[in-house]
Amino acid sequence: MSTTELTIPAGFRFAAATAGIKASGKPDLALIEAPAGATAAAVFTRNLVVAAPVIVGRKHIASSSNNMRAVLVNSGNANCATGKPGLLAAEKSCEALARALNAKARQIVPSSTGVIGVPFPTETLLKAIPSLLAALGDSSEHALAFARAIMTTDTRPKTAVAEIAVKGSRATLLGMAKGAGMIHPNMATMLCYIVTDVKASPRQLSRNLRATVDRTFNRISIDGDTSTNDTVCLLASGASGLDLARGKVSDAFSVALHDVCSSLAEQIVTDGEGVKHVIQLKVKEAKSEREAEAIAQTIAHSPLVKTAWAGADPNWGRILAAIGRSGVELDSSKIDIFFGDIQVCRRGMAARFDEAKAHQYLSNPKLEISVRLRRGRRNLTFLTCDLTDEYVHINADYRT
Amino acid sequence: MSTTELTIPAGFRFAAATAGIKASGKPDLALIEAPAGATAAAVFTRNLVVAAPVIVGRKHIASSSNNMRAVLVNSGNANCATGKPGLLAAEKSCEALARALNAKARQIVPSSTGVIGVPFPTETLLKAIPSLLAALGDSSEHALAFARAIMTTDTRPKTAVAEIAVKGSRATLLGMAKGAGMIHPNMATMLCYIVTDVKASPRQLSRNLRATVDRTFNRISIDGDTSTNDTVCLLASGASGLDLARGKVSDAFSVALHDVCSSLAEQIVTDGEGVKHVIQLKVKEAKSEREAEAIAQTIAHSPLVKTAWAGADPNWGRILAAIGRSGVELDSSKIDIFFGDIQVCRRGMAARFDEAKAHQYLSNPKLEISVRLRRGRRNLTFLTCDLTDEYVHINADYRT
Repeated sequence: MSTTELTIPAGFRFAAATAGIKASGKPDLALIEAPAGATAAAVFTRNLVVAAPVIVGRKHIASSSNNMRAVLVNSGNANCATGKPGLLAAEKSCEALARALNAKARQIVPSSTGVIGVPFPTETLLKAIPSLLAALGDSSEHALAFARAIMTTDTRPKTAVAEIAVKGSRATLLGMAKGAGMIHPNMATMLCYIVTDVKASPRQLSRNLRATVDRTFNRISIDGDTSTNDTVCLLASGASGLDLARGKVSDAFSVALHDVCSSLAEQIVTDGEGVKHVIQLKVKEAKSEREAEAIAQTIAHSPLVKTAWAGADPNWGRILAAIGRSGVELDSSKIDIFFGDIQVCRRGMAARFDEAKAHQYLSNPKLEISVRLRRGRRNLTFLTCDLTDEYVHINADYRT
Repeated sequence: MSTTELTIPAGFRFAAATAGIKASGKPDLALIEAPAGATAAAVFTRNLVVAAPVIVGRKHIASSSNNMRAVLVNSGNANCATGKPGLLAAEKSCEALARALNAKARQIVPSSTGVIGVPFPTETLLKAIPSLLAALGDSSEHALAFARAIMTTDTRPKTAVAEIAVKGSRATLLGMAKGAGMIHPNMATMLCYIVTDVKASPRQLSRNLRATVDRTFNRISIDGDTSTNDTVCLLASGASGLDLARGKVSDAFSVALHDVCSSLAEQIVTDGEGVKHVIQLKVKEAKSEREAEAIAQTIAHSPLVKTAWAGADPNWGRILAAIGRSGVELDSSKIDIFFGDIQVCRRGMAARFDEAKAHQYLSNPKLEISVRLRRGRRNLTFLTCDLTDEYVHINADYRT
């Protein structure tokens, strides 16, 4: 979190600047540099409408994943629905930065986040590159400045660190993310960058990243919307000497990557727009992971369920109704529902429970709600949140 | 609407009573009687968790659609997730009413709407049957009393009338509905009863009803939730003598049924919980009706789009992003978006438009928003609404 000192993996530098893309005058340009290069992998949004930087970034990762030099992020404008001029803007930005870093444009991953459909202020960005480069450094403050500059409606920067030690050698993973609204499986308006000093091939990174994203970022939901710009990018400098080709390193790395991503995922939900309650939704005894996911998503998606959570209303009937429309062919007379330890539904019917106690439990900022299906052996945990009037205010007033 | 005199089809009587199921003390029991019987058809919710009256109603319609005698509706308790006792309650209610009407229990269609998972107050309902029967009558006021007694969070009763005339003979269709929250294709917490004095077989009624529901009630969305209790029931007394077996009658009836259902569907959206803007969403030049529906539903479902509408924010980028995650494999660079006559997106990019004018247009209570895909020839209109802080308040405070 923002108050602690961040451990920085060797081989990376960070910077932030205020280009003037955000109307607020807050920092809106951010850079990660790998002076000696880094291997890379990335997962992008599955939305069919994608922002220009996603198109460019996919191409650059495909051609240069064995030697990336930098990640360039702007907030304040998503560079999406901006057509050919938007594509040119993303390319030009990479080219300008590459020239300054003595690299090739295809060694830069570009990212943008902010409003969709507003022409991209290319010149504003380009003019700020010198001051961005002047700000580069490898301290905890530099990394935190990066994490702050990529924020949009986030109220705080999101960072997570994990360390691995194998036979006396150590390596570090540092993750920095932004999120807030539009977070749902397939990573809406979420940007996340993880840098590490392990040594790894792009293929090793990619395999690890995909598996981890599926079980962390793809298991959170704020409002069910998915965005045009989502990017999770993993960069490995190799500076620690610890090699992912070694089994012990690989095992430790998988755990550490999962820890970093699940911490960032939780921070994103906790900082969701207008969120008053974070819900750890457990779907138990499903036949398959797939059906558990379908049920978790339908519950996490329901405005009626989410508004009941906002009011700490123990209205478990809305959860049952959501399960019923999840598309999973199930027998509702086998379903149990729990709020924390309080059983509110037993075999599809009201359990005897103390409404006042249930209301009190639901008033906590962090809750566990579990649904038992009695169909099989798969369990799944999904992170979500309530839908509050503040969410409506934030999103009704975003631009006008 | 509520202020006009309703034309009542011959062969039906209506009643309402206050049983005490609603805590508010408002009317909560309602009856339609067909003293000489009526043919019937019904469409029920597709939610897999269904309320007891839906289970019983399906059975009764299946066995007695050629001679139904009554529809018995209570509001204030959905009789859902109430297990065997709930089923017994629905059956007992039908039996008690049948005895009083000298009919069989299977000639009664039961319906319930209200909170889920609360034991059903069977005795409270049974005790009110005599006063319900005493209130029967065939005037406009009687029908309106029925329409009022089935309301839950609705702010006004919903009725629609259509008449058909073929070679000097006339027949009438009268529709009465309740809705408000949870309205989405497959008819969430929506109850609708249409009575007519045409002569028709159950099969003719069923065919007409299904086709019409697909194009009216299944093309509206308030919050995307679907309920456990939805029912649309059509009853035909035959008292007018006009026979649906005649082509001209059948044609006129189809049009009239569509008019009644689409009027009720619009009334339901307009009276949606906390609705400030009703949006007529037009998807144009789709390849198929199915893809047009998928796109309309994804847009109508997006909290980000719906909150922008609440704020009259011309944020068309959110609409474009919703289209991108609809599952339809399309080329976003062909998409146009219009707010009324104002084009805001041309071929996937910002069109030049006056933001203040667009904001002003979006401030109207009734809007038309169209999306042109340039993929084919199918057009579709879908009715939806904004997501306001009032919706959140209503649903966060429903019970506690």
